[in-house]
Amino acid sequence: MTDWGARAAAMLAQLSHLSEPGPGVTRLPFTPEHRAALHLLKEWMEAVGLAVTLDDAGTLVGRLDGPPGAGTFLMGSHQDSVREGGAYDGIMGVVLPLLALEKLKAEGVALTFAVEILAFADEEGVRFPTALVGSRALAGRFDNQVLDMCDANSVSLRTAMADFGLKPDAIGALKRDQDDVIGFLETHIEQGPVLEREEEAVGIVTAICGIERHQITVTGETGHAGTLPMEGRRDALVGAAAIVAEANRIGIHVPDLRATVGSLSVEPNVVNAVPHTVRLTAELRSPQDDTREAAGKMLRRFVRILADEMGLLIEWTRTYSQVAQPCSHDFAVHLERAVKQTGGRSVSLPSGATHDASAMADLCPIAMLFVRCRNGASHRPDEFTAPEDMDTAIDVLARFLQITGRQ
Amino acid sequence: MTDWGARAAAMLAQLSHLSEPGPGVTRLPFTPEHRAALHLLKEWMEAVGLAVTLDDAGTLVGRLDGPPGAGTFLMGSHQDSVREGGAYDGIMGVVLPLLALEKLKAEGVALTFAVEILAFADEEGVRFPTALVGSRALAGRFDNQVLDMCDANSVSLRTAMADFGLKPDAIGALKRDQDDVIGFLETHIEQGPVLEREEEAVGIVTAICGIERHQITVTGETGHAGTLPMEGRRDALVGAAAIVAEANRIGIHVPDLRATVGSLSVEPNVVNAVPHTVRLTAELRSPQDDTREAAGKMLRRFVRILADEMGLLIEWTRTYSQVAQPCSHDFAVHLERAVKQTGGRSVSLPSGATHDASAMADLCPIAMLFVRCRNGASHRPDEFTAPEDMDTAIDVLARFLQITGRQ
Repeated sequence: MTDWGARAAAMLAQLSHLSEPGPGVTRLPFTPEHRAALHLLKEWMEAVGLAVTLDDAGTLVGRLDGPPGAGTFLMGSHQDSVREGGAYDGIMGVVLPLLALEKLKAEGVALTFAVEILAFADEEGVRFPTALVGSRALAGRFDNQVLDMCDANSVSLRTAMADFGLKPDAIGALKRDQDDVIGFLETHIEQGPVLEREEEAVGIVTAICGIERHQITVTGETGHAGTLPMEGRRDALVGAAAIVAEANRIGIHVPDLRATVGSLSVEPNVVNAVPHTVRLTAELRSPQDDTREAAGKMLRRFVRILADEMGLLIEWTRTYSQVAQPCSHDFAVHLERAVKQTGGRSVSLPSGATHDASAMADLCPIAMLFVRCRNGASHRPDEFTAPEDMDTAIDVLARFLQITGRQ
Repeated sequence: MTDWGARAAAMLAQLSHLSEPGPGVTRLPFTPEHRAALHLLKEWMEAVGLAVTLDDAGTLVGRLDGPPGAGTFLMGSHQDSVREGGAYDGIMGVVLPLLALEKLKAEGVALTFAVEILAFADEEGVRFPTALVGSRALAGRFDNQVLDMCDANSVSLRTAMADFGLKPDAIGALKRDQDDVIGFLETHIEQGPVLEREEEAVGIVTAICGIERHQITVTGETGHAGTLPMEGRRDALVGAAAIVAEANRIGIHVPDLRATVGSLSVEPNVVNAVPHTVRLTAELRSPQDDTREAAGKMLRRFVRILADEMGLLIEWTRTYSQVAQPCSHDFAVHLERAVKQTGGRSVSLPSGATHDASAMADLCPIAMLFVRCRNGASHRPDEFTAPEDMDTAIDVLARFLQITGRQ
């Protein structure tokens, strides 16, 4: 009997060597490492009987045909990593569904629809200041203007793609027919601690969180830390500290919310001067947009009152916002059934991070299967998912395809 | 009748041009600008009948002899500025007592002791990582090891002093005879807002605050701001924010204390990552050492409990400490009497900053007279003290010398 988890681990180990030198995995889009990964994936896809093509967004597509007119179910994730990242984030979501198809083939199961395994070129957005090129292209939401964005060596995305043998101007034509696409399922490491705590190999994503980011600038007045009495100080850092505490308090007390001040810088930032300016960011994420928006307003109200009370000028700019993408309820039910068939307990959780599935939601119903990762660690060389957990995930994916095919 | 305030303003304006190019005043020790200032001061001192010498620490000494055996009263401050500083900090404390002597001379008053006006070379510590060279030398507390310290151009203090025509190895011999020295009075801009609020031209310093500085490193655990649930986070910035708030709370609630977190830096400092490390400083100042030490212990106890409660590692290092220097009660009484004779109201306040008087306290009883400055601003090109306030200060100094001479 094949040990599918061990197979997955071996394939991911092999792919992890297709990396720039240095610790961990560094595989950026439209590079020799990307090319090498595509060669290997193509070989493996063809061995399972898939028809393999590379689309003009750099997405490797392995297609297993189904009955005519039965539609196509899409599965996959991204081939790229962050710099000095791990061997699982993204690429595992290409390998596991491929092995699920191989497993079904080995078991003599024929699916009632076509399946495509997708390996997107760029989700991390490390090389170019844009991301989700491949998934946006399929959803018909690719913006041609990003082709002019450049990497650190002043190579534009357009040039990088053309040099890779793609026709960037043909990306618009990649939009899929919504009538043909049944759904998209992305398998991904959790990148968090929930499944470890729950002692489950896999979890079913309820929604991809919406995000809002705010840039907050607190302006007070500096002075010598010795000569300026406490009374009447307008210390920008004392104001900023209150905002950090309040954002954290809101995050803890509001259900289904994550609130983080990740970045904070102080001026003049010397031991004996009262700070006059502090710049900080506040990020709010929730699977429910109304929860996130209410929390954002709550924090903003706090900041307004604080500014009044402390005599500070506090500027507030929303720099980013993205609505939540709920996962398909039907697919979640199918995944739940599949998990139970493998003897697991169904654990539901939101995805705090953005994924290719976020962009695919503009095309079709989406689903995500999270796989437990050690210490919740990702984007690091020590990122790790156990072969047994990948084995479970492959089993769940294979069962999911059969359950969905029966509906 | 001479307008002494206008005289002072004109002299300080002339000195302010002896500066490196750029905004404000930049006059560092042992430079051509320092030399030019010494030439001018020497000329003015000699015009008042003082015997002028330059000692081997670079201190310009203008001596007005008194009756034999009557002792010497010292007055003065530093000639140097910070980079792009103002025209008053330091140097005003040389000009005003000189004008006070000239005023006494004009009024035909002979003092009952000798007076020396001192212009120290370096108090700000901007060029070399040391300061108070001249005042420490007079107190016999100069440490020869600092002669090997270098400026940004790798010129050692020893070389800079020798090139200036001084004999740095003779600094040890500058120690004054404690039996001869009656006291030291430093006149200085307040560098704070108290006198402006009190609507008084001058204030009498009760003590120079003691200082302690702590370097605090808060270590938690990073994670993706989206994928890491609030529960179980060990956010270093949330911990640091609590320390900032507590330091400020202690500063407000403990009388005669100033508590400041001036510097704080965050790692990795990106919008979507929970901070894993925050480095911050805490500085405490008080004219009472026991108040300061108790406050330091209070903050440290808070930090220990916080570390336990939040699961953070918090390292705490005392990087600096300096005891408070009380000013002479007798001299303070004389200053009070002098202020009242000029029609003013006596305002007492501590000095939050260190001054040459801090080092002189090792030699003799000290006194400090603060002069109101606009908006409490110092170390900036817009530093300003009104001629009327300098006029009052000159009057107070002249009266102080007479009152002290009568005791």
